[in-house]
Amino acid sequence: MNLPLGYAYSTVYAGIRQAQKDDLTLIVSGLPANAAAVFTQNRVQAAPVKLSRRHLKLSKGLVGAVLINAGNANCATRTGDAVSLATCKAAAKLLKLPVPQVLPASTGVIGVELEAKKIIDALPRLIEGLSPENFDQAARAIMTTDLVPKTAFAEVKLRRATIRVAGMTKGSGMIHPQMATTLGFVMTDADIPVSHLRSVLRRTADRSYNRLSVDGDTSTNDTLLLLANGASGVRPDPSEMAKLEEGIAQVMEGLAKAIARDGEGAKKLITIVVSGAATNQAAAQMARTIANSPLVKTAVAGSDPNWGRILCAAGNSGVAFDPLKTDIHMQGVAVCKAGLAAPFSEEELKKKLDAPECEIRVTLRGKGKGTARFWTCDFTEGYIQINASYRT
Amino acid sequence: MNLPLGYAYSTVYAGIRQAQKDDLTLIVSGLPANAAAVFTQNRVQAAPVKLSRRHLKLSKGLVGAVLINAGNANCATRTGDAVSLATCKAAAKLLKLPVPQVLPASTGVIGVELEAKKIIDALPRLIEGLSPENFDQAARAIMTTDLVPKTAFAEVKLRRATIRVAGMTKGSGMIHPQMATTLGFVMTDADIPVSHLRSVLRRTADRSYNRLSVDGDTSTNDTLLLLANGASGVRPDPSEMAKLEEGIAQVMEGLAKAIARDGEGAKKLITIVVSGAATNQAAAQMARTIANSPLVKTAVAGSDPNWGRILCAAGNSGVAFDPLKTDIHMQGVAVCKAGLAAPFSEEELKKKLDAPECEIRVTLRGKGKGTARFWTCDFTEGYIQINASYRT
Repeated sequence: MNLPLGYAYSTVYAGIRQAQKDDLTLIVSGLPANAAAVFTQNRVQAAPVKLSRRHLKLSKGLVGAVLINAGNANCATRTGDAVSLATCKAAAKLLKLPVPQVLPASTGVIGVELEAKKIIDALPRLIEGLSPENFDQAARAIMTTDLVPKTAFAEVKLRRATIRVAGMTKGSGMIHPQMATTLGFVMTDADIPVSHLRSVLRRTADRSYNRLSVDGDTSTNDTLLLLANGASGVRPDPSEMAKLEEGIAQVMEGLAKAIARDGEGAKKLITIVVSGAATNQAAAQMARTIANSPLVKTAVAGSDPNWGRILCAAGNSGVAFDPLKTDIHMQGVAVCKAGLAAPFSEEELKKKLDAPECEIRVTLRGKGKGTARFWTCDFTEGYIQINASYRT
Repeated sequence: MNLPLGYAYSTVYAGIRQAQKDDLTLIVSGLPANAAAVFTQNRVQAAPVKLSRRHLKLSKGLVGAVLINAGNANCATRTGDAVSLATCKAAAKLLKLPVPQVLPASTGVIGVELEAKKIIDALPRLIEGLSPENFDQAARAIMTTDLVPKTAFAEVKLRRATIRVAGMTKGSGMIHPQMATTLGFVMTDADIPVSHLRSVLRRTADRSYNRLSVDGDTSTNDTLLLLANGASGVRPDPSEMAKLEEGIAQVMEGLAKAIARDGEGAKKLITIVVSGAATNQAAAQMARTIANSPLVKTAVAGSDPNWGRILCAAGNSGVAFDPLKTDIHMQGVAVCKAGLAAPFSEEELKKKLDAPECEIRVTLRGKGKGTARFWTCDFTEGYIQINASYRT
C-alpha cells in the first residue's frame, strides 16, 4: 500500500513517560488539510480536547499539524490548558503555521501535570525528523498499553487517479463507543471540502469507532481526526464520493477491529452481529450490551459456549424482543434456537472457540430489518493485571 | 438475635447440581404470610419468576411456602414453565396449601433443562426436615458461586412487643441493580397488610438491593421476597411502622453489602457515596456508573489511589456536573480537590487501601442536596477465573 501524498511524520522521546520509548509525535500536512474531528462525550474533557475543538473552529477546519503526546492525558491538571496552548504555539512558530492550524492530542494517565518545557525543548528535534516514511514510527509512538501498533490502509481507484487513505490509532483500555473512542488519525490525499468531510467522518465513525468497546469506559481524551489535504490533486465528483467513503470506512473499521483485538489483556477479537431488530439503532444497542457483558466476555475467554449469558445480556439491553423467537450462533454453530438450547457438539465448538476470533450472531426472528455489527474482545486475567497496577 | 416466629426451613441435596451440597430449600410460614416481591427487569425471565408473579396475583399476596433450587436457573428451557408449576403443585399438595401460595425460585446455569422429578422425589424428605432452627442451612443451600452464606437480622422494639426480622440472600455474579437483584428472602413476624408491605419493600429495596452491583449484568432470575406472617401477634400502628421499616431496611442493606463483599473474586467491599447532586436519583446514577467501571474496580484491587479513573467514570454517568467543583476522597483522604490532584502521601493511602473495605466519596460542590450510597466490590483475577470456566 502507498501512503497518502503530502504528509510527513516524526517521533522523539521527550521524557514524558518513564519507559524510554518515543512519546511525542508530529503529523504534518504540507498543504494545510481540510479536517473533521469527533471528540469524547465524557463530561470531563482533557485540555487538548478542548483546545482542538477551539482551534478547528478558529481555523475553519484547516489543519497543518497534529502534536500528540503519550504517557500523560493532560486531563484534570492545574496547568493543562496553558500547556496545550503553549506547545501548539511553539510548534506553530517553528512550522510557520497559524496557531489554530495546530491541534494537540494527549493520552495517558489522568491528573498528573504535563510539563510544557519537555515538549517545547523536543520540538526542534521532532521537526527535523519529519519524513513521509515515518508513518509506522508514529503509529508506535502514540501507543500506551497497546501491544502492537494499529494501522490500516486503502487505495481507491477513481476515474482520474488513485486516492490513498491511511490511518493509525491506539487503544487499549478505557474504551467505549461514544463518538470517537481513543485517539485515531486518518489521512487521505483526496481533496474533500470540510463540510462534506464532516458528514463522511460522522457516518464512517458510526460504523467503526462507535461500534467498539473494550471495557465500557469512555476516556476523557478520545479524538478521531480525519484529514484530507488534496495532495493527489483530485477532488472526487459526487458520483465518486461513495467509493472513496467506502475506502475511508474500511480503514476506520480496520482500526476499530485492531483496537478490539489488542484490548488490554485480550486474547480474542469478538465480533457481535445482531439482525432482525426493529431498527439498526436497536440492533446496535443490543450488540453493545452483549459486548459489554463481563460474563459474555469471560465465557469467550474460557472457550465456553455459554449462550445463556448472551441471551441474558440481550435481555438487559432495553431492546424489545421475544426470547422465544431468538437464535444464537457462535462460530457459525447454532447454540440456541427459538430461545432454547440447540443440539451441538460441545467439544467441537469448544475447539472452534479457541480460535483468535469469535463471532457471536444473534438473530431476532421478526419483521425487523435492523442489523448491527459490533467489536469487542474477551476479558482475561491480563486486563486485571494491567489495570490493578497501571500507575505504579 | 432471635429469628422471626412462625417460620420453618429445610434443605436437602436433590442432585440438581453436581457438587454434593444441599441444593433444594423450603421456607414455610405456619400461617400464610402477607408477601411483597420485586423481580428482575431483564426481558428474558426465568420460568419461576413468571410463575411467582402469577401466584402472587392469584393468592392476593399470601405465601405459605417458597421452594428454591440452586444449580439450575430454569431459564430458557423447553419444559421450564411445566417444571415450575409441577414442583409447586407437588409441594402444595404435601403441605396442604393452595397451589398459588407456593412460590418457586431458581438460581444457577441458564439453558439447561431442570428435572421436575428430582425435586418432586426429594419433597417428602425436604418437608420432613422442616424446623425453625434450619435458617443457616437454608442460607447455605441457596448459594451458587458464593463463598459465604449471607444473612442479616434485626430486632425492633415496639410498644407492645419485639418484632424480629431475618433475611438470607445469595450472590455472587450477574449482579446489577434493577429491582430485586439475585435471590433474597426476608421474613418478619410482624403483621403488615399486603398493600403496605409492597411500599415498604419498594422503599427498602431502593436503598439496598438497587444500590448494589457486582458486574453490571442483571440476571434472569432475580427475586426479592418480603414475608410478614404476623406470628408475633403485633400489627404495628402507623406511628411504629417507620421504626419497623428501618429495621427491615437494615436487614436489606446488610444483605446487599454481603453480596458486594462476596462478589465473584472480590477481595474488597467498595462503598461509593456521592453527594451534592441535583437529586438523589442523579447521585445514584453517578455512583452506579463509578461502581460499574472496571477501571475503578481494578484500581481498588491494586490499592491504587487512581482518582482520575473515578473522575472519568463520573464524567461518563450522564449527570451534569462541573469537574472543577468536584472533590474526591478515598478512605477519608482527599485525593482530588476542585477537580485537581490534592497533595497526599501515596504510600500511606496505599496502605489504607489494602483494607478489606474501601470508601470512595465524591462531593459535587453545588447547591444540590442529592446523595446516594452504592455498594460494589473490587475486580480481581478471581472473577475471570470463576467466569471463564463456570459451566465446565
